[in-house]
Amino acid sequence: MKRKKRILSLLVSTAVGLAISSGAFAQGQLEKIMKARGLTQKDILAAAKTYTPTGGRDEYLAFASGGQSGQVIVYGIPSMRILKYIGVFTPEPWQGYGFDDESKAVLAQGDVRGQHLTYGDTHHPAISETNGDYDGQYLFINDKANPRVAVIDLKDFETKQIVVNPLFKSQHGGAFVTPNTEYVITASQYPAPYENGYVPLDQFNEKYRGGITYWKFDRKKGRIDPSKSFVVEAPPYSQDLSDAGKLASDGWSFTNSFCSERYVGGIERGRPPFEAGCSSKDTDFLHVINWRKAAKLIAEGKGKKINGFNVLPIDVAVKNGVMFLVPEPKSPHGVDVSPDGKYIIVSGKLDSHTSVYSFDKIMKAIKAKKFAGKDPYGIPILPMKDVLHTQVQVGLGPLHTQFDAKKCVVYTSIYVDSMVTKWDYCAGKVLDQIHIHYNIGHLMAMEGDTEHPDGKYLVALNKLSIDRFNPVGPLHPQNHQLIDISGKKMQLLYDMPIPLGEPHYAVAIKADKLKPEVRYRSGWNSRTDSRSPYKTRAGREKTERHCDADGKCTVEVFGTVIRSHINPEIIEAEQGDTVKIHLTNLERAEDEVHGFAMYGHNVQLSIEPGKTVSTTFVADQEGVFPYYCTEFCSALHLEMEGYLLVKPKGYKAEKASLKAGTVYTKADYEKQVATNLKTQKVIDQVVAFITARNFKDFPTVVALVEDATDQLGFAKGAREKAEAAAAKGDYQNAMLWANQWWQYQVKTADLGLRAKTYLEEHGAKVVK
Amino acid sequence: MKRKKRILSLLVSTAVGLAISSGAFAQGQLEKIMKARGLTQKDILAAAKTYTPTGGRDEYLAFASGGQSGQVIVYGIPSMRILKYIGVFTPEPWQGYGFDDESKAVLAQGDVRGQHLTYGDTHHPAISETNGDYDGQYLFINDKANPRVAVIDLKDFETKQIVVNPLFKSQHGGAFVTPNTEYVITASQYPAPYENGYVPLDQFNEKYRGGITYWKFDRKKGRIDPSKSFVVEAPPYSQDLSDAGKLASDGWSFTNSFCSERYVGGIERGRPPFEAGCSSKDTDFLHVINWRKAAKLIAEGKGKKINGFNVLPIDVAVKNGVMFLVPEPKSPHGVDVSPDGKYIIVSGKLDSHTSVYSFDKIMKAIKAKKFAGKDPYGIPILPMKDVLHTQVQVGLGPLHTQFDAKKCVVYTSIYVDSMVTKWDYCAGKVLDQIHIHYNIGHLMAMEGDTEHPDGKYLVALNKLSIDRFNPVGPLHPQNHQLIDISGKKMQLLYDMPIPLGEPHYAVAIKADKLKPEVRYRSGWNSRTDSRSPYKTRAGREKTERHCDADGKCTVEVFGTVIRSHINPEIIEAEQGDTVKIHLTNLERAEDEVHGFAMYGHNVQLSIEPGKTVSTTFVADQEGVFPYYCTEFCSALHLEMEGYLLVKPKGYKAEKASLKAGTVYTKADYEKQVATNLKTQKVIDQVVAFITARNFKDFPTVVALVEDATDQLGFAKGAREKAEAAAAKGDYQNAMLWANQWWQYQVKTADLGLRAKTYLEEHGAKVVK
Repeated sequence: MKRKKRILSLLVSTAVGLAISSGAFAQGQLEKIMKARGLTQKDILAAAKTYTPTGGRDEYLAFASGGQSGQVIVYGIPSMRILKYIGVFTPEPWQGYGFDDESKAVLAQGDVRGQHLTYGDTHHPAISETNGDYDGQYLFINDKANPRVAVIDLKDFETKQIVVNPLFKSQHGGAFVTPNTEYVITASQYPAPYENGYVPLDQFNEKYRGGITYWKFDRKKGRIDPSKSFVVEAPPYSQDLSDAGKLASDGWSFTNSFCSERYVGGIERGRPPFEAGCSSKDTDFLHVINWRKAAKLIAEGKGKKINGFNVLPIDVAVKNGVMFLVPEPKSPHGVDVSPDGKYIIVSGKLDSHTSVYSFDKIMKAIKAKKFAGKDPYGIPILPMKDVLHTQVQVGLGPLHTQFDAKKCVVYTSIYVDSMVTKWDYCAGKVLDQIHIHYNIGHLMAMEGDTEHPDGKYLVALNKLSIDRFNPVGPLHPQNHQLIDISGKKMQLLYDMPIPLGEPHYAVAIKADKLKPEVRYRSGWNSRTDSRSPYKTRAGREKTERHCDADGKCTVEVFGTVIRSHINPEIIEAEQGDTVKIHLTNLERAEDEVHGFAMYGHNVQLSIEPGKTVSTTFVADQEGVFPYYCTEFCSALHLEMEGYLLVKPKGYKAEKASLKAGTVYTKADYEKQVATNLKTQKVIDQVVAFITARNFKDFPTVVALVEDATDQLGFAKGAREKAEAAAAKGDYQNAMLWANQWWQYQVKTADLGLRAKTYLEEHGAKVVK
Repeated sequence: MKRKKRILSLLVSTAVGLAISSGAFAQGQLEKIMKARGLTQKDILAAAKTYTPTGGRDEYLAFASGGQSGQVIVYGIPSMRILKYIGVFTPEPWQGYGFDDESKAVLAQGDVRGQHLTYGDTHHPAISETNGDYDGQYLFINDKANPRVAVIDLKDFETKQIVVNPLFKSQHGGAFVTPNTEYVITASQYPAPYENGYVPLDQFNEKYRGGITYWKFDRKKGRIDPSKSFVVEAPPYSQDLSDAGKLASDGWSFTNSFCSERYVGGIERGRPPFEAGCSSKDTDFLHVINWRKAAKLIAEGKGKKINGFNVLPIDVAVKNGVMFLVPEPKSPHGVDVSPDGKYIIVSGKLDSHTSVYSFDKIMKAIKAKKFAGKDPYGIPILPMKDVLHTQVQVGLGPLHTQFDAKKCVVYTSIYVDSMVTKWDYCAGKVLDQIHIHYNIGHLMAMEGDTEHPDGKYLVALNKLSIDRFNPVGPLHPQNHQLIDISGKKMQLLYDMPIPLGEPHYAVAIKADKLKPEVRYRSGWNSRTDSRSPYKTRAGREKTERHCDADGKCTVEVFGTVIRSHINPEIIEAEQGDTVKIHLTNLERAEDEVHGFAMYGHNVQLSIEPGKTVSTTFVADQEGVFPYYCTEFCSALHLEMEGYLLVKPKGYKAEKASLKAGTVYTKADYEKQVATNLKTQKVIDQVVAFITARNFKDFPTVVALVEDATDQLGFAKGAREKAEAAAAKGDYQNAMLWANQWWQYQVKTADLGLRAKTYLEEHGAKVVK
């Protein structure tokens, strides 16, 4: 059947005859499709504004919280294609997150009072800022259920740190950053005692507390520094979302609240429920805080330590003019500071208005000590009417506001009415409204909470999708609707289902601000951002067994992975041994990830190029445990396998040698070598095709050629082994190494063909 | 500021002025967008073929494995929007999967040898079939790393069962169903001893084994029955994918293999790696198995039990004509049976050909006992040339084949060449080829592995996406490319990134075959498909504490959730108590899911309408632990909260009563009542608007009206409580219940406005 020969001929011929159809835009073709699919002309325009052909890039990247899935969701705008779920508070095996020892250590940072947690309720992502604009370096995200904050590095889209708030017992409001990411702000939600002990509810007013945490971010280390962070103590209201002041209001921050009634429910004993008691008063309080002064007071030792954390008590804050309250329409959801920092927009969700406060008026009232009284905790209350700029009727249930690139233009999500209202906060008038489907929570404009919003697109983060998509059972996806805001009227462009998680807030950054890396430095621990002590180079792989004085033994593997084998392929241990496996991915090629899964031990690693990861487990059962690569990395991927053999304690091997399942002859070897030599000629032709063209003008091709060169180098090594074995008359090994040599040639051919196709499709020119 | 009054006016006015822009298809508009976004006319046609406007439905639903993420991914075709990730082998908190006691029990079924597993390496989903066509009832998916199979019910898209293979130690090939889902077929991959003990590798040929498992599916119960399932023992080759015969070949199944060399690697000790030794021979073996006869032999007691599972030994299988081998080009990836059951297509992935076998010729050779010999285990080998129908040169590295609606037309994925080849397996000729980006594994045509393939679309499941999307760090998404196969030439339509997981195979079913439910029967345990013993009705909520003879105490909560409160709102326990919380979602409305998260106890539940779920934990620390609803379910969602209070052991409460944070007067009450009465008038107007129209013609509106009626009923109840309290002069409670009455009105208004908008947007007519 001469298969190999036929492969050879294909190596140079398959790219032929694949003419890309182009031709004229047949007038009737589009209309025909529209008719068949029931599309309107408006639909076609929306399609044209969002469709992104193969290889195309999105203009913006959005980062959405995944709610109680504990993840962060990354998607492109305007294509609305989801690019990645980043594991944050929840283990995720595809990424090896919470499976390799390195990321387990990150998750373990998030243990709360000794309890290991395997989820988080993520709410509000924030991108690090420099001078009030997104800089694309870091992403912060909070957990509401357990008051935590995670730091994600946008160099590799991995979670690097989780910090636990030692005072709060819940934390909806966060994360929000100050204009130069000096601090990451989070606020408590449901009041609770700062201490961890039991305090009865009849001491709610006296001993339960809220608060706002300012997490100090050490940009040089890329980590939060809890020792330099602090809490500003607040009354037992349910503090909610915050926003940092900027420009005019830099140094201040704003946190709203609900349930300033301090109501405690108990419907099970006949009391009206929380929802009744927490929405009875007409107003709640916006907390206005001078965080710069608070930080100074903490630095001066004016705070105190509770549970080892810095706290600025209410009385100290009040005495030093750090905290003020402003009445705001009840049960507000969002507080958003205008790009120039001069206005603060608050929406009471049971109201039909947004309230625009003037920072200038707030400062004047504070300076004039013009207070409308104090709250029960002695905090001065500024008179609402004195500090309001305007109130605008925007719809029933306004929640959050985002800013347009156009001066004074904002968008507010309207929950009950299921709408977005576009309005002018300077002139105080509604400009446009659009229905969404259904019940919008947050909304997101492009860089819409920075000093320089980008306009163009708006995304409505809708909670319900009931009749929008094909049904998938009682648990529905949510619906992110893309809206074109470039014109005078808003236009709906696209409905995107969210297949996993319940996003709350999202932020969108210009894609060109992100410069993620495509590989790690060799032997890298990506979670600590440092060279792994377990880094292993090619040829230096080893397996050691060492026992301690108590007879406890550890088998430690310093291994590597590369297309298409794991080194070692056999690991031996004795029952009861601790097994530690460290694996370094030797690939230099982008996207050449390898995985590592093992039967019966809950082991699943993801090893991106350059990375070193580890797994540790106890081999507590004797037996045979296959392991293999879980990423389809090459044609020989399924053969990327091995065995952990766990012998019973004290096992004595009988003398036996491994019998070959198949025996090869000199003829087999010579046939294989002949194939390889022919294959090399074909590879040479592909190489000639590539090098005859201006391939160096195409970075993608340069990378492929680099990788192909590596593979050919490996082929050379295998060939030397084959020839050495043949010289000794060992045709069994000669044949096997000759086949390995051919396998490297096939990998080379794979790369060469992709490079050749790329050059053909991208109009490369002959240069010689 | 008269906010409430302004809300009232809005209630009837917000839908006004939202004219949907339509107008003419301005000739230049499309061209302008195309120019701005660099789109070709071909791109616009592709966009028109895939873009699905708001509320539109997809024609097909695809189910893809999530690889080592352990999930199943559901997406629509042609929109390529991902609708859901279904938790299968990996806990997923948004769904509460692996968090509530009910789903923990499902995951626990998947423990392997006492080891709890929190991931799986899912590979090949299979939809249940009736008469060889998808019936849309169940989905099966295998785990390669630990040999398991999960059953997903497509009524609610939930995982119902996990079965563990007690003999295999890995299992890549699966799941594949027989034409009436009598059996779900899985094959072992890396050979290992059936018993769990240690067997040295020098006994590989003698004691390591492969095999094919036939899992009996009990359709009435919707569960696999392990007691009626069996393994057909196979030699220590790496068995791989399978396909069941159909029509002409019904009763037979086909399983291919690689590494029939029986090579054992050991690169760490100088041996050539597995990849070299497992691809040295020119051919491997296709296993041809008469499963119907095998089942009969097992039923007749001709098998034996190993690890408690039925096994048909090789010798019994051979003696009874159950198993035959056919040489196939080495290291094949896919085996696919034609819709009529007459042909079996195999692709050797190191070859450039697909091989088409004739079932008729196979039967003739078997009947004539025309064997080319036996393998080392005595299994007859059919002569390859005698049973081949044809071989076709399709490209380098062919893997899998899917069938078109057009007779004899198939599509094969070409890994090394990164192509799809369309060819005719009857005539044996190539029809068309298209490049994909990059390195395709499986491919999927619409119902393309059934007796009646649907054609139309093909999806290429590409492993690498390196330069296709905005970069998101070293770990890339994979790329599913949608290809239009309705014409003579294949046309690329869409690139879809896979944000989580590494899909291997996928299946696509006509969407209208799926009839998922939108809610559960009240008090339902969705994992056992039966009424939960913990079902709780409204008004029957209770919390009990009972202690056993050893003084171990359990606090057991029979609670409910509904917009917007959890009943109970306060739970009390003593340190050391076991806490069991059962929650029933009382909602009848579609999409009104509630969640339940609690600080510090790793508790996160998803409670869809009607569902009852439970969580059990030990309250091992004293303190205050807030809990709340994690699904943004209503305007008052944030107020859907409560506290678990854990008292120290033996704690004696001091006499104290809960002081109100805010005190209300008669005036407050009367003001609230006045608001409510006005709100009621507005609701009446909305009701009048709806009932004056043919709303019963719109099922969505009928459901909204039903829900609104429920909410108004609750409002009535709250009003009665308010009036009763007022009659007693208890204005504190009168005010609170009056506010609760208003909260129900707001929920009613939310629904009413959505119904009103829906009627306006869908051209409802006035009927009276």
